[in-house]
Order: sequence, then C-alpha cells, then structure tokens
Amino acid sequence: MSADDQVVERVRASFERQGLMRLIGARLTEVGEGRVRITLPSSPQVSQQHGYVHAGATSAIADSAGGYAALTLMADDAEVLTVEYKLNLLAPASGVRLEAVGTVVKSGRTLSVCTLEVHAIDGDEQPTLVAVGQQTLIAVRADSSRSTAPEA
Amino acid sequence: MSADDQVVERVRASFERQGLMRLIGARLTEVGEGRVRITLPSSPQVSQQHGYVHAGATSAIADSAGGYAALTLMADDAEVLTVEYKLNLLAPASGVRLEAVGTVVKSGRTLSVCTLEVHAIDGDEQPTLVAVGQQTLIAVRADSSRSTAPEA
Amino acid sequence: MSADDQVVERVRASFERQGLMRLIGARLTEVGEGRVRITLPSSPQVSQQHGYVHAGATSAIADSAGGYAALTLMADDAEVLTVEYKLNLLAPASGVRLEAVGTVVKSGRTLSVCTLEVHAIDGDEQPTLVAVGQQTLIAVRADSSRSTAPEA
Amino acid sequence: MSADDQVVERVRASFERQGLMRLIGARLTEVGEGRVRITLPSSPQVSQQHGYVHAGATSAIADSAGGYAALTLMADDAEVLTVEYKLNLLAPASGVRLEAVGTVVKSGRTLSVCTLEVHAIDGDEQPTLVAVGQQTLIAVRADSSRSTAPEA
Repeated sequence: MSADDQVVERVRASFERQGLMRLIGARLTEVGEGRVRITLPSSPQVSQQHGYVHAGATSAIADSAGGYAALTLMADDAEVLTVEYKLNLLAPASGVRLEAVGTVVKSGRTLSVCTLEVHAIDGDEQPTLVAVGQQTLIAVRADSSRSTAPEA
Repeated sequence: MSADDQVVERVRASFERQGLMRLIGARLTEVGEGRVRITLPSSPQVSQQHGYVHAGATSAIADSAGGYAALTLMADDAEVLTVEYKLNLLAPASGVRLEAVGTVVKSGRTLSVCTLEVHAIDGDEQPTLVAVGQQTLIAVRADSSRSTAPEA
Repeated sequence: MSADDQVVERVRASFERQGLMRLIGARLTEVGEGRVRITLPSSPQVSQQHGYVHAGATSAIADSAGGYAALTLMADDAEVLTVEYKLNLLAPASGVRLEAVGTVVKSGRTLSVCTLEVHAIDGDEQPTLVAVGQQTLIAVRADSSRSTAPEA
Repeated sequence: MSADDQVVERVRASFERQGLMRLIGARLTEVGEGRVRITLPSSPQVSQQHGYVHAGATSAIADSAGGYAALTLMADDAEVLTVEYKLNLLAPASGVRLEAVGTVVKSGRTLSVCTLEVHAIDGDEQPTLVAVGQQTLIAVRADSSRSTAPEA
C-alpha cells in the first residue's frame, strides 16, 4: 500500500539529507507503508576489488531502505536510528543496478524489525537475489538528546 | 605483529581496486597479521540525515577491514569474500574521522571469523566506540568459478 | 513440496540423535524440500525467568529447523553444520506450543542460507510471530575431518 | 570486578526461575559487574546428531550469560529482555563442559550490547573457543506492560 503523502514527503526530505546516498548515486524509488525501495546504479565508483558492487554500498542502501520502511509506521514526531543489522551476501552484485527493499516485520512503540532484500538487475531486467538481511531499529523523539542512543 | 611485505602488498593492491573506498575517501592505515585498520575522514559526503557518518560508510570500512584481516592469514592464491556480517551501532559516528579495525578470531581453511570495531576520533584524538560487529568470510581460489560463491 | 522418502528418513534419523530435542520435548512435524518445521510444547521446563519459553529453547528449534531444511537440498553424502545464525525475539513466547520453520533462501554447493520463523500458537490455534532469524550453514562430507569445521 | 551482593542476589534469583537452565544442567558460576559466566556440563542429553553439544544449548547459556551481564548494570527496578543475538559456531563443542561468558560492551539507559564467548573445556582443563556472539538487550521496568516488548 502506498504511504500517505505526508509520510512520503518526510521520508524524501530525510533521504535528501543523506550525503552518502547522493555520493554513491542511490535513489529512493518506492515509499509504501512499511516498505521502501532504494535503487543504486552499478558503477566502478561503488565497486570492490573484483568489480562487483562493494558490500558496503549494498549495505548502505539496504540499511537506509529498512530505516525508512520503519519510519513510515512510526509516530509523526519520531526519528529512526538503526540499532543493528545483519546481512548475508548470497551472490556477486553485478548487473546494471541494485534494488534494495526494506520491509517491516514488527513495528513496536520503541523497536522495529525489518527484513532486507537486495536484488541485482541485469540488462534484461532479470533480478538475482544478492543479499538478505535483518535489521533492528529504534524510534527516538526528534527533540530528545541523542547522547545515549544508537546511531543510524 | 606486522604482516610480511608480500602480504601487505597484496592487501594494498586489492584495496586500491576498491572503487568505493576511493569514492568515500577511506585509507588503509594498518596491515598486521590477522588485523587491519581502515580510516575514513568525516565529511558531509558520507553523512546520514542527522549529519553523522552514515551506517553504510561505517559498514563499508568495517567490512573491508575484516575482509583484509582474514586475507592476511589465507593461502597465497586465495581471495576472500564476505559471507555475512552483523554490526551494532552504539553511538553517533561524529568526530573528525572513523577508524575501523578488523581482527581475526578464527582462521580456518575455508571459513574465517572476524570481530569488527569502529571508533570515532574527535579533535582531541579521543576515541569513542561507535560500532562493533562480527563477520564470516570464505576463502576462494583466485581461479575458481565464483558462480556459486557469496560475494565480498 | 514434500521431500522424497529417503531425504525425510535421513532427516528423521538425524533428528532422533539430537539429545537436546528429546530433552526439551521437541518434535519434527514437517519435512519438505528446503523447508522443515519443528514443534515445541510450552512447559515450565523450557521457561525463562518470566515464565515464557526461554530464547535458548526457541533458538534450539529454530536452528535445527533451518539446519534440516538446508540438509534436504544437499548431496546424499553431505552433513550440515551451522556456521552462524542471528535471531530477533519479537514477542513473549507464550501459548501452548511453538512452531519453528526453517526455509532455504539460497542453497549453494558449500554454503546455504535459511530464514527462520517461530510462531507461538495459543489455545485457539492463533499464531503470533515471536522470532525471526537468518542462518548460514555449511555442507561437509560425512567422512571428512571435522577438525577445522564450524559446528552444528 | 565483583558485583555488589544485592545485584548478585537478583541475578541468582532470576537464574533460579529459568526452567531451561535447570533442565539442561547449567549453573551460574560468576557474577561480576557487566560480566557473567554460565557453565554447562556436557552430556548426551544436550547433544546434537554428532554427539557434540547442540548449538541450541550453547546459545541458551550464551544468551543467559549476556542477559544477566547487562542486568548487573541496569537500574534496580529494571528487567532485561533479549532483543536479538547472533552467534558464530567456530568448532565442535566437545569436552567435559562449556563455559559461556557474557560481557557488556555498551550499557545504555534503554539498550545494552554484549559480546558472548563460549569455550569448551577438556579433561585437562584446556579451553577451546567454540562460539562467539553479539547480543542486543533492552531494559524494561518490572511493572510495565510487556505487550509490545521483545522477549528474553
């Protein structure tokens, strides 16, 4: 289901502030209720030593996708921070682009849990699952001190 | 202990091929036997929405540090791929730079396991632990098919 | 899809040798291709301090379910060992029984990856998702030395 | 450092209520500030299919050790629940007993993070590291509703 306009706007505004997403060329391509997609074109700039997309870039878009998926279900004045995540890398991340989808499995008042999936899309638009993950997030009030909180 | 020159050279040459490390400005600052350090200067380019270093950048240097730490203990003709990793984000990654250290806990013929630690260093050179992780890696022969292997 | 009889028999025979499954009262209740279910009746014997089922018991059935799910897709002479797993505990594990399902996401020649789900079933047969996890497994030849291998 | 008597007593009382620890024969053998040890004698009752200690039993003592380590640093009226944990199994868990140690890496007002280590001790009292893990825990008030909280 598509998230309401205000939520979509909040997610887009936050995404725009992520310098790393701009640096690597990632785009926010879907914002649904409890489900967000981020797309990353392949390029030598985001590669590891064998020419595939670096796990760090794969992680970056997966982490952001999960974080924003959780945010779509949180209170209006909440911000989201990643507590931890775990990612299995299943296959070389080649192809023309990566698509990371974060989906909320459990949305609690304090903690949320997402599953993360990253597909590599080849030139014929065929997807290959290249990474799966699981992520824990925490809702923090926008005006609260962040000194003891984990970080996104 | 310092790794021997040949190993250091292999790690440096591989690191130089990682486009993502260059893009984000990361540098290889220590190569020991079973222990590698990667340093990332803070900048708006690698930020998340609150101005801290993005978890994806933190992950990228932690993953690479662990991968190269494992590689220092592998056979000469082996390459290393990350099977999976898990990272807890403990505190906002602020400061002037991040230092990620990967340390081998178990080096097996096929699989290796590393612990990952990332500190943020402030302007007075004081470190704050901002992330801890655990990583599984696999040794693959440089000439083997990578079709069924997980990816780094 | 139901696994063939020989595979089911192999899984059952192995499960019978797991002393811990017998001790806690777990039963193997479904063996499909790449998907295995293990059921654990709730009892004070498997509790934690608040009376819910202990995360260790939840983990034990989740780990075994994933391990056997992976085994159903491995070569006939392979045995399976757990490399690592990660489990998020989403809700108190109460109810009359737990049902853990392991499902293979990727089955490789050497490594396999499973997702793990555990539901608590209440007296009205209503399920609540109490844990989700992700697991990495390795296939080892039954006659190979296990000295350097991770353990199940 | 040894924890104060009141904390030790709280941990012991809670441990005594864990039916699973009694069932598998685990004992609480060290309660320090931010560090707890649990010992499990090896026996066929806690085995997996190859005769080693089952990963579920290894996990159970590691999870409890980490949970109680975190509890030693929490407020007097807090209870601890495991949010998630990840465990790498490094070697077969054989020997005469297992010793799991949980150590707090970060103790926050809401969340804590522990590292987990499990050694197998052989008949000559020689230890082998058989598992390492990382765990996230949450402090909940003893009188609060647990309906939205993750479970220990």
